[in-house]
Amino acid sequence: MAKVTPKIQSGFMELLPAEQILFDKYRKIIQETFEEYGFVPQDTPIVENANILFAQIGEDTKKEIYRFAKGDDDLGLRFDLTVPLARYVAMYSNSLTFPFRRYQIGKAFRGERPQRGRFREFYMCDIDIIGNGSLSLVNDAEIPAVIYQVFKKFDLGEFVIRINNRKILNGLVDSLGLLEKVSEVLRIIDKLGKVGQETVRQMLIENVAMKAPDADKIIEFVKIVGTNKQIIEKLEALDINNEMFANGINELKEVLEKAISFGVPEKNLQIDLSIARGLSYYTGTVYETIMADERIMGSVCGGGRYDNLAESFSDQSFPGVGISLGLTRLFSQLLSDGVIVTGAATPAKVLVVPMETSTPFAMEVAGQFRELGVPTELYTEDDKFKKKLIYANKIGVPYVAIIGEDEINKKKVALKNMATGKQELVDVKTAAKKVLG
Amino acid sequence: MAKVTPKIQSGFMELLPAEQILFDKYRKIIQETFEEYGFVPQDTPIVENANILFAQIGEDTKKEIYRFAKGDDDLGLRFDLTVPLARYVAMYSNSLTFPFRRYQIGKAFRGERPQRGRFREFYMCDIDIIGNGSLSLVNDAEIPAVIYQVFKKFDLGEFVIRINNRKILNGLVDSLGLLEKVSEVLRIIDKLGKVGQETVRQMLIENVAMKAPDADKIIEFVKIVGTNKQIIEKLEALDINNEMFANGINELKEVLEKAISFGVPEKNLQIDLSIARGLSYYTGTVYETIMADERIMGSVCGGGRYDNLAESFSDQSFPGVGISLGLTRLFSQLLSDGVIVTGAATPAKVLVVPMETSTPFAMEVAGQFRELGVPTELYTEDDKFKKKLIYANKIGVPYVAIIGEDEINKKKVALKNMATGKQELVDVKTAAKKVLG
Repeated sequence: MAKVTPKIQSGFMELLPAEQILFDKYRKIIQETFEEYGFVPQDTPIVENANILFAQIGEDTKKEIYRFAKGDDDLGLRFDLTVPLARYVAMYSNSLTFPFRRYQIGKAFRGERPQRGRFREFYMCDIDIIGNGSLSLVNDAEIPAVIYQVFKKFDLGEFVIRINNRKILNGLVDSLGLLEKVSEVLRIIDKLGKVGQETVRQMLIENVAMKAPDADKIIEFVKIVGTNKQIIEKLEALDINNEMFANGINELKEVLEKAISFGVPEKNLQIDLSIARGLSYYTGTVYETIMADERIMGSVCGGGRYDNLAESFSDQSFPGVGISLGLTRLFSQLLSDGVIVTGAATPAKVLVVPMETSTPFAMEVAGQFRELGVPTELYTEDDKFKKKLIYANKIGVPYVAIIGEDEINKKKVALKNMATGKQELVDVKTAAKKVLG
Repeated sequence: MAKVTPKIQSGFMELLPAEQILFDKYRKIIQETFEEYGFVPQDTPIVENANILFAQIGEDTKKEIYRFAKGDDDLGLRFDLTVPLARYVAMYSNSLTFPFRRYQIGKAFRGERPQRGRFREFYMCDIDIIGNGSLSLVNDAEIPAVIYQVFKKFDLGEFVIRINNRKILNGLVDSLGLLEKVSEVLRIIDKLGKVGQETVRQMLIENVAMKAPDADKIIEFVKIVGTNKQIIEKLEALDINNEMFANGINELKEVLEKAISFGVPEKNLQIDLSIARGLSYYTGTVYETIMADERIMGSVCGGGRYDNLAESFSDQSFPGVGISLGLTRLFSQLLSDGVIVTGAATPAKVLVVPMETSTPFAMEVAGQFRELGVPTELYTEDDKFKKKLIYANKIGVPYVAIIGEDEINKKKVALKNMATGKQELVDVKTAAKKVLG
């Protein structure tokens, strides 16, 4: 029979067992932390009606959607978890309790040209807090607290959550009489890291028709650095008489102060006036998360405050604040750059290995280990003993419980520590204790 | 602005928070049990190349595939987790260690006409053990042991794993000289529950051209009931001189005996000669799982032994045995028929409620609870105290930690048990202990 070549699309991450176990470790940390903060799980369909997906979307993303017909239905794969959230909140608002705090860890799909670090299928890990009509600024301070906990538990070295407030720049641009051009100004400023100050200044003058002294003011503003306290002082020293600008500073001050009460150390939460997060979607607080390890490039986790989540789907106002961690991209970088390395290729902590064929006693022992809380695998095949140990080495199981005639007679196991090679004859209870450490 | 009506496709299950938390509880039991038995996690793409999906598929399923083009690529959504497993094993066989024991809990898609209990997007929870060239029968006995543990932990009342071996019927049909028609015979027998004995007998005579006495023999065979021991005795008493038939009986005996060594009580594992699992795919042991609760209809979990997993993708032989639990369908039945009821709509065990506005102390208390292992939510909004307690009731959080002036001064919380209404002034450590019970 002619064989079909087994392959998958490029841009789709698929892992070998030891890699998958490692991926799941990080995924579990995220999920547990989200739940620790009382976020409720959400699991929306992978497939949405196309008119939902297209309701609030940029032109670039539109092209990337996997869209298809089934019968009379015009469908597509979700490209993020925010549109499904907006649709969900609008659809079930009468059944939900607000503030609605949900997390979703799920796959999203973008059919873009594959390139290093970009995926067509990828996990997003999102938290959002949605108010009904209003939502207090305390929530803006809690989001970095959650993210701080996640990255602390990741234990991947230093990291900084960069924070800003869109009202500050909006207010500044407003004070220059250019508020209607603020998105364009934002897009230009967003290029700062790539093209440098001088080009940004030129672009402001040429593309937005900004006066040179005003462009200088923007550059002077974006250049403000220092400790959080210094930045706030420098902003206030700009002496800009604009309400939006003042509100932005006050919000930023309050969010910082409350985030510290929530337990975020000051060194992990730094004002960065250059981050704007291109999307016009955000209206106040914005976040990005940067890891100190230079091998991990760019923001690994970003989000912010938005005035109205579901404006495409509902007349009600649902302000919210949220953040999204791109786990597939982060994990792929961590692994390929050697920041993390794989361990065992099995969740089992002990492999029960019968010397000869699988005896009832070996099966009982496996059951006893599990009852004692030890994830356990039984070696099932009639192979030579040596082959069984090779298998144990290959899957990287930390302990092997060998069962030969002597062990059967004594109702014990020969517990072998695979790292040290040390072996001892013990009963299953003692063995379980050793395995669980 | 014109609004898009927020809705989803029928046949796609989407849950409210309390329902989702309940769903996740069952999903977690499944996952933890699979890992307890040393199965490694697998997470293949939702999207596969169409030629992979179409490689080994029946005509009925073909029509149900969500298929689409993206650029030059002919793609589709996976309709089960077995085809991706076959593709994966063929693709990475050099990197995998055999026997390869994997589980996958993931969504599959079938665009069939929606009807009660049928879903277009649904979770499959699959375990399979794949050998390279050969695979011992011990694995056939371990599968029911895993499923027994899962349903025991589900705690949804009595259940029976029905077991059979395809070689028995194949051998019987072979002894009648009709082996090439065995799939047709199987399909007819599979209708037994729906159409009854007499119709099955007629169909055997008319559709397979079976002689009347031979059809009677098949009916006599399918009617065999009793304890496992009685059934085996009755099968042996049929005195059919056929090697395949004898092998089938011996395999069934061995699997039963070993499953009992693995800890499956006899009453939970019963031979049922009428189950065949239509798919020509299975070649030996087959399973179905039936719940005693009459509200849960049909098999909730089925599978079996197959000779060659990846024959469409590889020249190598990969025999395997596996089982699949359809969680979406099961959960939907459990919930809609009132077998299970929803509880809290939050993973938090305590809600910290400031009497007035959110104070730093309230935020600190929330952090302390979390450090003590208590999933904790802080009430963030500046609402009236009464509204805060209404919120607590609505989300069904078991405890509320109230913080007023007195509590701030004493550095304590007023812990209120929401079920009993009892309230007491305690420090956070004592409160955490009470909450964790």
